[in-house]
Amino acid sequence: MHKNACLNLFAVLLLLFGVLFSVPARAAENSLDKVAIELVLRTQVAAWNRHDLDTFMAGYWNSPELTFFSGAKASQGWQAAMDRYKANYASPGHEMGKLEFSDLRIEMLAADAAFVRGAFHLTMPDGKTPHGIFTLVFRKFPDGWKIVHDHSAAAAE
Amino acid sequence: MHKNACLNLFAVLLLLFGVLFSVPARAAENSLDKVAIELVLRTQVAAWNRHDLDTFMAGYWNSPELTFFSGAKASQGWQAAMDRYKANYASPGHEMGKLEFSDLRIEMLAADAAFVRGAFHLTMPDGKTPHGIFTLVFRKFPDGWKIVHDHSAAAAE
Repeated sequence: MHKNACLNLFAVLLLLFGVLFSVPARAAENSLDKVAIELVLRTQVAAWNRHDLDTFMAGYWNSPELTFFSGAKASQGWQAAMDRYKANYASPGHEMGKLEFSDLRIEMLAADAAFVRGAFHLTMPDGKTPHGIFTLVFRKFPDGWKIVHDHSAAAAE
Repeated sequence: MHKNACLNLFAVLLLLFGVLFSVPARAAENSLDKVAIELVLRTQVAAWNRHDLDTFMAGYWNSPELTFFSGAKASQGWQAAMDRYKANYASPGHEMGKLEFSDLRIEMLAADAAFVRGAFHLTMPDGKTPHGIFTLVFRKFPDGWKIVHDHSAAAAE
């Protein structure tokens, strides 16, 4: 895990370097923001996979106004989301499995707003593989980029 | 229909008037943009309900880069979406039903970007009522606000 973290840091630094010295200012900021947003998501995945729900949830706006659309079910509030994740994945008889994101498309909408399209794939200890796609809306806050709205839809297995 | 159109126009003018003479400039622009975005959606609903798919689809960015997430199925491109709507709703043996949107929450992200959370409800001639929720990402183009990404999820009936 420590070696991976170093490699990740190196990759990010390399990207930053390339970004800073190759493209004009606004485009460079855009690319830096995209790197920052991707880092939020990669941090979430790594946290999930070491069963660290607190760090996973730090990627979300800690606000009663955070919204979650899970399939056709709408819910609201960071705490409610945290409680739901705990009940569904971290309570006795439940497993978190191994999470992967793929097909990430990060699109900047403004200096402080972006949306992300992507796919998730869980591998559970019993061999099941819940998966699906998501739309995330990100805003930039003083403490970094956070998801303010998450619309995820799981495929029928 | 004509009387309704007049009433709608009157309501919009009243809103614009209220907006223009009551709040500071950027907030006023925000409110105008929200009115414009709501008008795109209301125009789509009215078009759907008179079986006018061309006007309904004019609310979407006419680009191969338009994306549609329907539940856990991703697709891309304006023309593909149009073809799908035609096949599913406007071909022999299919009905369009009566469409309604509710719980619209339009949130500005920039002067030229916004996202919308809402719910849809169809009433079909056979009494079925397909319904669900959606997340839309809007961008402002020279010819107005258009949906660039639509993530809709239907509830199990």
